[in-house]
Amino acid sequence: METQTFDALLQNKTQEIEKIIRSYLPAEEGRQKTVLQAMNYSVLAGGKRLRPMLMLETYRMCGGRGREIEPFLAAIEMIHTYSLVHDDLPAMDNDEYRRGRETTWKVYGETMGILAGDGLLNYAFETALRAFEIADGTDPGMLLRIAGALSVLAQKAGVHGMIGGQTADIEAEAGEIPVTAEQLRFIHEHKTGALIVASMKIGAVLAGASEEQIRLLERCAEDIGMAFQIQDDILDVIGDSSELGKTVGSDEQNHKQTYVTLYGLEEAKRTVEELSQEAVEQYLKNVGCDHEFLERLILTLIDRRK
Amino acid sequence: METQTFDALLQNKTQEIEKIIRSYLPAEEGRQKTVLQAMNYSVLAGGKRLRPMLMLETYRMCGGRGREIEPFLAAIEMIHTYSLVHDDLPAMDNDEYRRGRETTWKVYGETMGILAGDGLLNYAFETALRAFEIADGTDPGMLLRIAGALSVLAQKAGVHGMIGGQTADIEAEAGEIPVTAEQLRFIHEHKTGALIVASMKIGAVLAGASEEQIRLLERCAEDIGMAFQIQDDILDVIGDSSELGKTVGSDEQNHKQTYVTLYGLEEAKRTVEELSQEAVEQYLKNVGCDHEFLERLILTLIDRRK
Repeated sequence: METQTFDALLQNKTQEIEKIIRSYLPAEEGRQKTVLQAMNYSVLAGGKRLRPMLMLETYRMCGGRGREIEPFLAAIEMIHTYSLVHDDLPAMDNDEYRRGRETTWKVYGETMGILAGDGLLNYAFETALRAFEIADGTDPGMLLRIAGALSVLAQKAGVHGMIGGQTADIEAEAGEIPVTAEQLRFIHEHKTGALIVASMKIGAVLAGASEEQIRLLERCAEDIGMAFQIQDDILDVIGDSSELGKTVGSDEQNHKQTYVTLYGLEEAKRTVEELSQEAVEQYLKNVGCDHEFLERLILTLIDRRK
Repeated sequence: METQTFDALLQNKTQEIEKIIRSYLPAEEGRQKTVLQAMNYSVLAGGKRLRPMLMLETYRMCGGRGREIEPFLAAIEMIHTYSLVHDDLPAMDNDEYRRGRETTWKVYGETMGILAGDGLLNYAFETALRAFEIADGTDPGMLLRIAGALSVLAQKAGVHGMIGGQTADIEAEAGEIPVTAEQLRFIHEHKTGALIVASMKIGAVLAGASEEQIRLLERCAEDIGMAFQIQDDILDVIGDSSELGKTVGSDEQNHKQTYVTLYGLEEAKRTVEELSQEAVEQYLKNVGCDHEFLERLILTLIDRRK
């Protein structure tokens, strides 16, 4: 695929996803208007919509053509967003800016920041459940696929997924436990990796992929998640702060253990390369579907400068 | 029913529910152990298990005999608990004690208090989704009933339910909006009422009750929720602080507008009486099932001294 063709396709697909996400946001009305505004402010703060993109492309690659996927695209972005909203709170990372905008608690206050996060997490499930309204209610196979996709979402977002990683990360930062290679791997796999695995797995499950295909795509997503996170650590050392929109070198300043501090820059770069290769060659290509766009997307996401 | 018989029955049923809730709590292990401990600490802090009790009794009254209800009993208590955990946070009500024990954030710190609340909310959906594993997967009718029950749970707990009421309550307490009778009604209906309605409605939906039966039980639950909340306001004025386990007169000290401050004590008592009558006579008795235990339960819950 030509770079130009890929870029144009990516732009179109991002717009398609943006439109779907917006169509599932709640109306800002009623006596609870403030929390609804804070929720929408958070979701509309931008971002690459990486998770819904991976979900939709996996779904289509596996032959999915229905609209049951749409509420899940919005739901995964709501969960990703709520995790950032709570992460930024004064009692957590105490961040006042994200992507060049004031964080939710900074604009709406700490109390509303907590409630907006709770609201988004809850609304993600409310939204994903709407897939049952879209589906053919007489087809138990489809109903079970939606039930399966909901379970993946809940498990990967929860205490055995993202929240588990967040807990381990916070205890590591507080110096309450030593940051070994295993601990760092656990944090990456759970805090960042879990939602990326959820995205691709939900796409595959909803499209009715075989168990073997689902297994391959899960491994693929695990590699992507890890490579993506290590690339983040690398960019914190060598990135251009104007492109990144955040301070470079913040990990070192905060004495934060990362893949780079543990293994060094060259080894980190080599690992990213190995993981991307494995994700595509060993897993994605063996799913047995047209993987051209997804392959390109994965390599672009990992080999990024911001 | 003799009082003695009712008390013994109630005790048995509470033990049954307690056992079911405990069986769905996560194991405290792994690198995210701290958040799991904080979650279980919060759920096991006690409480009357009012919501699961109403759910189970409604389910049985409507003829439900399956085990699909069990994960929902645990889930509604997890959602109720997370709302208390976040409510108690320093950025919210800043409460250090609840039911005579230190609150979750007081024991585990503010960061872990936020994460434990998030963990419980997410785990509630993870748990409720397990009903699909219990159900007969070839019966689309049962699958759709579970899907319907999940939607009720999500909607009543969310921004158009409990979180919406919480938002309105916080803005009222902050003096950002005038506390009119309509505003107070909205707060009560959403902050307390929504989960009580969810409990009874989920019981009815899962049992396969008719639309008319569901409608009657929803109205019944709305009355119960409102009566329960007004009784709370009354007890804050006339209650015995040793029985209540909290300070009496705290609403007045906090200049909090309640049903009692707006309408006076006598009118508040009369309203509780009217609502209980209506709940039982106009709604519960017209469902057309054996309502004896549930009637007694409702009247006991409303006419309480703590």
